[in-house]
Amino acid sequence: MTKNLGIVETQQITCFERPNSLTLKSGLKLGPITIAYETYGTLNSDKSNAILICHALSGDAHAAGLHKGDKKPGWWDNMIGPGKAFDTNKYFIISSNVLGGCKGTTGPSSINPETKKPYGLSFPVVTIKDMVVVQKALIDRLGIKKLHAVAGGSMGGMQALKWSVLYPDSVNSAIVIATNTGHTAQQIAFHEVGRQAIMTDPNWNNGDYYDKKPPSTGIGLARMVGHITYMSDESMDKKFGRQLIDKERVGFDFSQDFQVESYLKYRGESFVQRFDPNSYLYISKALDYFNLSEEKSLDVVFQNVKANFLVITFTSDWLYPTHQLKSMIKALKINDADVSSCEIKSSYGHDSFLIEADGQSDLITNFLKKESK
Amino acid sequence: MTKNLGIVETQQITCFERPNSLTLKSGLKLGPITIAYETYGTLNSDKSNAILICHALSGDAHAAGLHKGDKKPGWWDNMIGPGKAFDTNKYFIISSNVLGGCKGTTGPSSINPETKKPYGLSFPVVTIKDMVVVQKALIDRLGIKKLHAVAGGSMGGMQALKWSVLYPDSVNSAIVIATNTGHTAQQIAFHEVGRQAIMTDPNWNNGDYYDKKPPSTGIGLARMVGHITYMSDESMDKKFGRQLIDKERVGFDFSQDFQVESYLKYRGESFVQRFDPNSYLYISKALDYFNLSEEKSLDVVFQNVKANFLVITFTSDWLYPTHQLKSMIKALKINDADVSSCEIKSSYGHDSFLIEADGQSDLITNFLKKESK
Repeated sequence: MTKNLGIVETQQITCFERPNSLTLKSGLKLGPITIAYETYGTLNSDKSNAILICHALSGDAHAAGLHKGDKKPGWWDNMIGPGKAFDTNKYFIISSNVLGGCKGTTGPSSINPETKKPYGLSFPVVTIKDMVVVQKALIDRLGIKKLHAVAGGSMGGMQALKWSVLYPDSVNSAIVIATNTGHTAQQIAFHEVGRQAIMTDPNWNNGDYYDKKPPSTGIGLARMVGHITYMSDESMDKKFGRQLIDKERVGFDFSQDFQVESYLKYRGESFVQRFDPNSYLYISKALDYFNLSEEKSLDVVFQNVKANFLVITFTSDWLYPTHQLKSMIKALKINDADVSSCEIKSSYGHDSFLIEADGQSDLITNFLKKESK
Repeated sequence: MTKNLGIVETQQITCFERPNSLTLKSGLKLGPITIAYETYGTLNSDKSNAILICHALSGDAHAAGLHKGDKKPGWWDNMIGPGKAFDTNKYFIISSNVLGGCKGTTGPSSINPETKKPYGLSFPVVTIKDMVVVQKALIDRLGIKKLHAVAGGSMGGMQALKWSVLYPDSVNSAIVIATNTGHTAQQIAFHEVGRQAIMTDPNWNNGDYYDKKPPSTGIGLARMVGHITYMSDESMDKKFGRQLIDKERVGFDFSQDFQVESYLKYRGESFVQRFDPNSYLYISKALDYFNLSEEKSLDVVFQNVKANFLVITFTSDWLYPTHQLKSMIKALKINDADVSSCEIKSSYGHDSFLIEADGQSDLITNFLKKESK
């Protein structure tokens, strides 16, 4: 029987204190770095039951349970808890906000200790690798030598992949969901529309808006585009179809006529209340820069990988379609990695990884069981 | 052997002079209406060889041939000319700019005779039906009782469909390419992003910008989104992949890194030079309002249709995918219409209707031959 976690709290630690700053992939140094994280369940005595959950573009450390006073639980509450896919009766679940984020981990809205003002655009551009290096510092601080699993969807899947390659001895297994090994031209293109929308908003002010009006319009447009790519043609038709806001008639003007229009506009406009536009720039750039193979072929990249892999994709996910991971699965198999892959039938598009708890739970429960033998 | 048309010119006529203004679908009246059009080939003595070509969102009357001094021919020059799919040795081709457009037909940038200033947002919202009614006035003026064919891709296909339903006795055959019988939630959503981008650009000024700076940023963003939807994942990967602008390295900043980014930004920024942002609003709204079935089912809508149909779609067109026209083909067949349909294999996405001349030409040449028996 599944239960919910109840009240949870976000915690913070600080690493990479100067002079031990982190040297980023760009070559620039950053420190100190505060990491916001949550944990659910209990770490066992030999510290072998830890699972790291990695979030997507607009996610945060609050993956499950309720914050005091909130009615809405964490973003993967349907997957994390007692008796759920990531079973907190068995596992110690860790979820942290990524480097560059805006939910407690150091990012462009954090105070730069040198200037005592928010970093803004003086914050260095970070990569998925940098995010993973910071997560490793958290895992080290918690005294965990090896993760039972690292798991995530979308950008979270990229982090899981990077973990398996960067720290092969620290990852038992990787659960890689609805993602890609490197952003395609189309994936980059949709992000660049979002970035241009933010950066051409006069309120963006070259990233210096923390004591002024934020670029709400720009990030609202970025979020509208994002939402379209996260849903499927079918899920949008099921949810909205051509339903009108005013059931009687269209307005024959440029106010909004269709429910899909007002939904997207509302979701866009309200996004700025929970997300920093500069973080959107930094994190989307990290996604676009991500390319697991870079100069080497994937066959070579995976040579030292020791983890077992569970790869999940969804039939209606046109942003990260199944076929894009075929060459990765092949490259893993060439390297004798244990890989299970499954394409789940779902109409929810890319959002399926957040919604399709049932389909994913059985796969994950069994995969985690196998690995803990 | 195919040849090019050489130099062509856009002509204009004016209809719906007051008090004989056009009553639009909205109930509002509009007049006078100037129609910009081009013709290629020669009208035969019994005026039975005329084919009307209908353009898409950003198209115009200049479908083929060269304007004096230009190097780039009309948008369907690969399809229209001596020996081509629409063979000007046989047929008299007519192409007109749609109502609401900005290339010579009355639209929001036209001078309102009452105020002597551009209409701007005082221009009434128009529909695909209104566009077709205006085209009919042009055909009447040219003394043509029945079109040998009406043809178009994307929004042009919607016009062809509307012609077949609205004027069943005036259309021998309809060539309907890469379109839909009514915009889906996803199709509406992408347009609404573009409209919001234009209308939130401070230079838009509620549509009143004709003596000021136009909303270039807004329409640029709208065009960037549009371009992504017109291409396919595959064609973007073939054309750009992850190629960098500076081959040496990424910039680790928010200038553009990837060629796909600079291509889209350039195409977006240059669009305002050839297209009026208000026309973009009006025409995209007409597309979103289009719903051939409205209260009736398609079976009933097609009851009086007399035309023969050629329906063409493309495998990689994810904006107007093949499956969306299945129920239309069924409804036509239920009404004993002669329907040929073909899905052409192409990697160019929605743009295929502009690019894949070879695949389309054979189908169209044969279809037009059959109908002229």
